[in-house]
Amino acid sequence: MSHTDRVLLAHGSGGVMMKNLIDEVFYEGYGSDLLLTGDDAAVLQSDALKEGRLAFSTDSFVVSPQFFPGGNIGRLAVCGTVNDVATAGATPLYLSIGMILEEGFELESLKEIVKTIKETALEAGVSIVTGDTKVVERGKADKIYINTSGIGVIPKGVEVSGHRIAPGDKILVSGTLGDHGIAIISQREGLSFSTTIQSDAAPLNHLISDVLKAVPQAKAFRDPTRGGLASTLNEFAEQSGCDIVVEEAAVPVKAEVKAACDMLGYDIFQVANEGKMVIVVPPEDAKAALSALHANPLGKDAAIIGEVKSPRKTEKPLVSLKTPFGSERVLDMLVGEQLPRIC
Amino acid sequence: MSHTDRVLLAHGSGGVMMKNLIDEVFYEGYGSDLLLTGDDAAVLQSDALKEGRLAFSTDSFVVSPQFFPGGNIGRLAVCGTVNDVATAGATPLYLSIGMILEEGFELESLKEIVKTIKETALEAGVSIVTGDTKVVERGKADKIYINTSGIGVIPKGVEVSGHRIAPGDKILVSGTLGDHGIAIISQREGLSFSTTIQSDAAPLNHLISDVLKAVPQAKAFRDPTRGGLASTLNEFAEQSGCDIVVEEAAVPVKAEVKAACDMLGYDIFQVANEGKMVIVVPPEDAKAALSALHANPLGKDAAIIGEVKSPRKTEKPLVSLKTPFGSERVLDMLVGEQLPRIC
Repeated sequence: MSHTDRVLLAHGSGGVMMKNLIDEVFYEGYGSDLLLTGDDAAVLQSDALKEGRLAFSTDSFVVSPQFFPGGNIGRLAVCGTVNDVATAGATPLYLSIGMILEEGFELESLKEIVKTIKETALEAGVSIVTGDTKVVERGKADKIYINTSGIGVIPKGVEVSGHRIAPGDKILVSGTLGDHGIAIISQREGLSFSTTIQSDAAPLNHLISDVLKAVPQAKAFRDPTRGGLASTLNEFAEQSGCDIVVEEAAVPVKAEVKAACDMLGYDIFQVANEGKMVIVVPPEDAKAALSALHANPLGKDAAIIGEVKSPRKTEKPLVSLKTPFGSERVLDMLVGEQLPRIC
Repeated sequence: MSHTDRVLLAHGSGGVMMKNLIDEVFYEGYGSDLLLTGDDAAVLQSDALKEGRLAFSTDSFVVSPQFFPGGNIGRLAVCGTVNDVATAGATPLYLSIGMILEEGFELESLKEIVKTIKETALEAGVSIVTGDTKVVERGKADKIYINTSGIGVIPKGVEVSGHRIAPGDKILVSGTLGDHGIAIISQREGLSFSTTIQSDAAPLNHLISDVLKAVPQAKAFRDPTRGGLASTLNEFAEQSGCDIVVEEAAVPVKAEVKAACDMLGYDIFQVANEGKMVIVVPPEDAKAALSALHANPLGKDAAIIGEVKSPRKTEKPLVSLKTPFGSERVLDMLVGEQLPRIC
């Protein structure tokens, strides 16, 4: 492979080589009409925007390895931000892409990632409208880091937030837990199981929209990424001031993911997901939400897993897990680091 | 300094330590009401948004060193995106901050950067509404990289883009060139000049707004960052299909910056700026634009430096420089890399 097949410092110079990289790789790869204007900011114009309520989110992706079963860092970068925007009940419309490339990164790999970004954006129904590229010296990054920021429009009447959660509400998950985290760690450590565990990375905006159609009064959505379900539920408990109880036996987990967790000593509730959603709805709407989830292939393994309770303690709100043996344990947030650079 | 004074991998875990970092450093430092809701996406709501036309831009900052005369990476990160959003004629309103931190980075330095972000956002009049933090292992980044994305509202009637540039239009710069690039390289190389050259990093949204008030029909704005004035003018030439001629003697440059460029062998027209704007206006409006610039301290050294011409060639549009000696040279985009990680 010659040096021209790799990212060079000059690709980040602001000069001719940067222009060539942008024209030949990014514009070629995922250029939307807005991106192609070549101005420094994208001008977004649509009747949808006139609604006046937007969701805005950002996420940087530093996953290692960059390619893994079920996707690559490009798929993760689109899904992560699309899902964060969608958790506000919004329809994601526009994405920005900021790349930090390490000198020496193979252009073939970059093109592959760009291709995946384009395909995943198409799947999610979002346009890439603005971007930025920086190059750092060898040893000052790990191949490629990607930031995506996203804008979505919140339809009239939709009001979702962790602050709206109240005692009695039911907690659902949209599918099996732990797939992404275990796929990454398996790839990283060269572990092989009887079947290859694939990352679940997927854009969930259409799934959330399905739930909101069935249950417009849904309270909150959040994707249990870093820190897993434990972090998401503890955040919900803190935001709402309520306790949360989860039935361990009700939580869907693939047998091979459970086996891997047991073998590797991970707590499935703290393992990252990239294509799952935690959903909180009023009790009377739980079944309708579940039906809406089951009707979408991305929600086929959805389940009602727990309930919001009035705080039982004078201390901080508590998330607990009822085991199949009838005992109860506190479901704490991760202390320390489990799987660095999982996303 | 104990290990607790530094960024640890666990600060990026999604668990307890990440929550503490967010609460104690980011929320404490620049928490807006929207950031403090703790949801995954910020919900933006305002009458201004109902205009239905937004500017959206993103930029990652990897500057080395992170602290330099006139600012630090935090100031750069806010100014860079505020200025990009403002180049669309928009009023910047909301910023996201995505940080990639290297394990071992001093928390004191991080807090200093966060403080600068808060102050610069206040200066620009923007709110930080959403954020993300990743931590990578030692040797996989250089202390801190920051992505900012920004959203602004474009007032009714404002239409600016490089595509609107036409023969006869006048080119202005808002002040002296090269200050940022030379400040960084001096700091990096330990050079000292008779006076310390300071980075010009500044939010220019109010300056642009002043120009648009005086000249609502202004054609285009762009900040000559990486690649300097040469890149900006070549981009304008390509977007408009027009030639551009610049009078070298009319371009404002500080004597000490010129001396440093001569000594170090840099072409001042290719050196990065972070607090300057290139402005294109119809010929009859050039004086009004200049007066508006001069009335703002950030535009006190502004000058009319050139003119847009009908393309003289059948080949691609050309930017040229008229020297004080009457000769003319082509002002090309930078080839290769001059100053890696200037921003």
